[in-house]
Amino acid sequence: MRQKAVFYHAGCPVCLDAERQLAQSLDPQRYEVEIVHLGEARERVREAEAAGVKSVPVLLLGGIPLHINFGADIADLH
Amino acid sequence: MRQKAVFYHAGCPVCLDAERQLAQSLDPQRYEVEIVHLGEARERVREAEAAGVKSVPVLLLGGIPLHINFGADIADLH
Repeated sequence: MRQKAVFYHAGCPVCLDAERQLAQSLDPQRYEVEIVHLGEARERVREAEAAGVKSVPVLLLGGIPLHINFGADIADLH
Repeated sequence: MRQKAVFYHAGCPVCLDAERQLAQSLDPQRYEVEIVHLGEARERVREAEAAGVKSVPVLLLGGIPLHINFGADIADLH
């Protein structure tokens, strides 16, 4: 069974680069990647924060947030 | 042909988490990942800096450095 990974972003240029480079590079045999634009799905900001997300873009992999470069602070997305 | 990706780290706990979570999660059909411990291969610090690496752990993917969380500043690895 594939493990779920979540890529949270906010539409910023840094976010889109990271999505293209990283979120689409995971092994599709092992990971199912959900892409979430927090600027459009603000109701999911709290879910991201609860998972330990501090900034976007971020890849939540195995429940661990991997913050990638820096696009925006999660606090600015409320 | 597989694309080369380089994961630079410095043996720190944040680095090892990122390696386990991310470097080993890329699609092996598309990526060949080289793991470089800059604390042990200091001669490669300049190569990483030339690629735009500012801190470790970092994944160099398609020539773009994706800094993951923050373990150590590259300047401290000289």
